[in-house]
Amino acid sequence: MQLFIANKNYSSWSMRPWLVLKAFDLPFEEVMIAFSEQPYGGAFKQKVLAVNPNGKVPVLLDEGQLVWDSLAICEYLAEQYPNLALWPVDNAMRTRARCITAEMHSGFISLRNQCGMNIRADLTALGQKLWQADESLRQDVARIEQIWTARPHPDGFLCGDFSIADAFYAPVVTRFITYGLPLSKSTQQYMQTLSAHPAVKAWVADAHAEQARVAFLEAQL
Amino acid sequence: MQLFIANKNYSSWSMRPWLVLKAFDLPFEEVMIAFSEQPYGGAFKQKVLAVNPNGKVPVLLDEGQLVWDSLAICEYLAEQYPNLALWPVDNAMRTRARCITAEMHSGFISLRNQCGMNIRADLTALGQKLWQADESLRQDVARIEQIWTARPHPDGFLCGDFSIADAFYAPVVTRFITYGLPLSKSTQQYMQTLSAHPAVKAWVADAHAEQARVAFLEAQL
Ligand SMILES: N[C@@H](CCC(=O)N[C@@H](CS)C(=O)NCC(=O)O)C(=O)O
Ligand SMILES: N[C@@H](CCC(=O)N[C@@H](CS)C(=O)NCC(=O)O)C(=O)O
Repeated sequence: MQLFIANKNYSSWSMRPWLVLKAFDLPFEEVMIAFSEQPYGGAFKQKVLAVNPNGKVPVLLDEGQLVWDSLAICEYLAEQYPNLALWPVDNAMRTRARCITAEMHSGFISLRNQCGMNIRADLTALGQKLWQADESLRQDVARIEQIWTARPHPDGFLCGDFSIADAFYAPVVTRFITYGLPLSKSTQQYMQTLSAHPAVKAWVADAHAEQARVAFLEAQL
Repeated sequence: MQLFIANKNYSSWSMRPWLVLKAFDLPFEEVMIAFSEQPYGGAFKQKVLAVNPNGKVPVLLDEGQLVWDSLAICEYLAEQYPNLALWPVDNAMRTRARCITAEMHSGFISLRNQCGMNIRADLTALGQKLWQADESLRQDVARIEQIWTARPHPDGFLCGDFSIADAFYAPVVTRFITYGLPLSKSTQQYMQTLSAHPAVKAWVADAHAEQARVAFLEAQL
């Protein structure tokens, strides 16, 4: 299997299936297509389009089968490896995991638009401004805290063991750190648990090691 | 099972799981929570929050199990009824169905924002203006036409028989009609196929029969 991703510092959608592959020790080759200076255009777009007609990463290529979109990739992997609990085994937990994952996949637009992922940066000052100014950002964060706080064990993952659901909220954890948003104790505890997961640590370390700085993805103060 | 939905004329997310339930003849009770005059607020919000902490429809309630988000509901139903082909049976087709469904679930923001679903309305004049003015709308439509044109049979559904993928693109079909966008012959053929499906016909007929007119969901010329 080959997983095509973009820069680890910035590409929140790439992070999700990568974490799943890594956390469950699935064999894969990572292919990095670095962002260009034009917003999602230029050489990046040409290289992605050569693999995937929808022009976006992440994309998985598995023996000729093209699988795109972070959530479809994770469902595909869950089907391919039914003996691994990519989704929780317990029925009610699995359903909840799917609900909160789907909610992330199509929601939290304010947080995603205003607090772009930027693992290396410290944007606390910007984060404070946004927090004051933007009601919809505060609502997104409140809903995320509600979801996280409902996890079965305070020192555990969202739906028991690490699952696709945690992979989907991992970029949110990095954003909360980058933008220094004010968060509850329970939220901070989950952020610690997730940040300590070996797959998350590996991605974050790679992000810090990357050289490329992409101007259009660096937030403006 | 109870499916909570909003007005059939406007609620594109409600339409998707409703079509799946209907198309596969699954037993369910429909519970309508009508939109209020305040944008997604007021009595609508209060009633939805009483069922679903995330405050959105659609929501499925199945013997005490709460399932929210259109895509998670469809995955849940696919698991509950493994003998029905809610997703295509063929592996490659099922993967493709999941990819294009996920792409719809988190994408096509320009189309969704600018051409809100409004089944009863004729907004051809507005559609022409938007089409001229908005490059990203034209790109969304071009990608949708690319996806639809790749269907296995010109007179069939997106991935063979009617599946969750078609349910996800059904609101796009109604939008293309409402806004009178310029479309290829192949696209028009798919729109006819989908519009003739009994589940789609039933939803559209119900939308026409609804009395409520919600001002904030009526597009401004
Ligand atoms: N819904 C997609 C979103 C993928 C996405 O937007 N990826 C970004 C990089 S993080 C991208 O490739 N953007 C290029 C573009 O939008 O043209 C998913 O879940 O995979
Ligand atoms: N990602 C959700 C979106 C659901 C959604 O946005 N539903 C609208 C009605 S079509 C709603 O309830 N909006 C209320 C709100 O956003 O407050 C899904 O796929 O079900």
